[in-house]
Amino acid sequence: MSSVLVVGTVAFDSIETPHGVVDDALGGSATFFSYAASFFVRPRLVGVVGEDFPGAFRHFLSERHIDTAGLVTAQGKTFRWKGRYHADMNNRDTLEVHLNVFGTFDPVVPPAFRDSEYVFLANGHPRIQMKVLKQMTRPSLVMADTMDLWISTEHDALQELLPRLDGLVLNDSEASLLTDEKNMVKAGLAVRKLGPKFVIIKRGEYGSMLFSEDGIFVIPGFPTAQVVDPTGAGDSYAGGLMGYLASDTTPPPGRLRRAMAYGTVVASLTVEGFGLDRLRRASREQIDHRLESYRNMLAF
Amino acid sequence: MSSVLVVGTVAFDSIETPHGVVDDALGGSATFFSYAASFFVRPRLVGVVGEDFPGAFRHFLSERHIDTAGLVTAQGKTFRWKGRYHADMNNRDTLEVHLNVFGTFDPVVPPAFRDSEYVFLANGHPRIQMKVLKQMTRPSLVMADTMDLWISTEHDALQELLPRLDGLVLNDSEASLLTDEKNMVKAGLAVRKLGPKFVIIKRGEYGSMLFSEDGIFVIPGFPTAQVVDPTGAGDSYAGGLMGYLASDTTPPPGRLRRAMAYGTVVASLTVEGFGLDRLRRASREQIDHRLESYRNMLAF
Repeated sequence: MSSVLVVGTVAFDSIETPHGVVDDALGGSATFFSYAASFFVRPRLVGVVGEDFPGAFRHFLSERHIDTAGLVTAQGKTFRWKGRYHADMNNRDTLEVHLNVFGTFDPVVPPAFRDSEYVFLANGHPRIQMKVLKQMTRPSLVMADTMDLWISTEHDALQELLPRLDGLVLNDSEASLLTDEKNMVKAGLAVRKLGPKFVIIKRGEYGSMLFSEDGIFVIPGFPTAQVVDPTGAGDSYAGGLMGYLASDTTPPPGRLRRAMAYGTVVASLTVEGFGLDRLRRASREQIDHRLESYRNMLAF
Repeated sequence: MSSVLVVGTVAFDSIETPHGVVDDALGGSATFFSYAASFFVRPRLVGVVGEDFPGAFRHFLSERHIDTAGLVTAQGKTFRWKGRYHADMNNRDTLEVHLNVFGTFDPVVPPAFRDSEYVFLANGHPRIQMKVLKQMTRPSLVMADTMDLWISTEHDALQELLPRLDGLVLNDSEASLLTDEKNMVKAGLAVRKLGPKFVIIKRGEYGSMLFSEDGIFVIPGFPTAQVVDPTGAGDSYAGGLMGYLASDTTPPPGRLRRAMAYGTVVASLTVEGFGLDRLRRASREQIDHRLESYRNMLAF
């Protein structure tokens, strides 16, 4: 089984959805990614928290056997995000962002983590993502996420990073912003020309699309009636995907497609509860069971 | 092979999309439905046109072997619609609607058509849809479309129609309006409780969902880079679906799922040209070829 490393945020999330309100829940890209990946591998986490980060949250990570040797505690407060979802759950307003200790975080990958084969650079400044990548000694598959902010303001740093990636995951509006293409097929093909070997466009509840040398692959979202809180769905998708990839030794391209299905299924569990609530109650057996339902649901 | 009947509009469409402008193209729900179905069966069309309906358009229908014995020519002008699509192609503004002869159309199914086994009641007043249905002598599968207008203004007539249907096809915003549910899984299950044996929710480029006694089935849109004009996509979907259903004699539920895949593929061809341009150049071989690409594209 290969090793999986994630570098990203560990955060306090305050969330309002039509289903309720939660304050200061454990969140952040590295948290959701590693939680999702933990059903397949023992993920390695690199991130930063403040002195206010409680032991209970450390326990949330250790109970899923996430290796937190790269989780630094810095002087100050933990990253905080506050958001409110619209009634349709597909849109949200960010009400507050406090970078706190994450604002000056310069990630150092612990020596024991530098040989990680699967590397996920969660959304962050592309120059920081590149600095992390340069610390890795033998990465075999590097995937990154990005966001509209970096596409708009850090064009050059992003262009430099993209050819270094195996995979880029981004959502549909980001793909349009990056390529000036409204059509997602054109956008996906255009993103791939910027350098990554494969591109995955996430479309929320509608599913995701893969663009690779093996062509185009599309997959719908797993239909769930219980969408309580979409926070962390994208990072759970990436975590389920990469965790599965690292645990499967069959040849591509089937492996990457199956990994996307696992990512989809894990993300569908995430959204069924606030924050990590639902994933904390999940098991590999539940995930495999839902994957089989999903496979049957798609067959014609 | 079973017989397929459609009752709906035959129209002049004037359309503006980011790809260009077309004036007075042949359109209408019955036109797109029967064109799409004609790759599988010889469809029977019931509708009305005005005295301004040109011979060239009659030829467009006859060249696909559509039986137009139920196409009445009434005194006055043909139904006209004018619309403009937004840059994302997922939304449009209706600029003009002139019902003309369709406004007073009281469809009479010709005696030779009354034994049709597959019946599609294209979008129209639910009381008219019911009147058509009562003229049929041995329908084995009845499917209807509807729209926000009837959901909002003809609640009682619609509630009376729904239990008489095998299938209802409607788009996601209509399903939400009808059930007051934003979540599409909840909405689909709730629509089915109103009477139809199965419900198909269309989500445009994102695909469609089936709710039936066999559970939920989801299918993404066929990804095409050439979205020129989405007009008629929904009726092409229904026509491809029902045409295929009528031509296949294997048992459900596999048959209905396969039919949805055919509907998806035919609709993906429709949107690649203005009006009927692309479908007129299509062949059953092309459709089957695209279906195989689609099947491979979905496999994991």
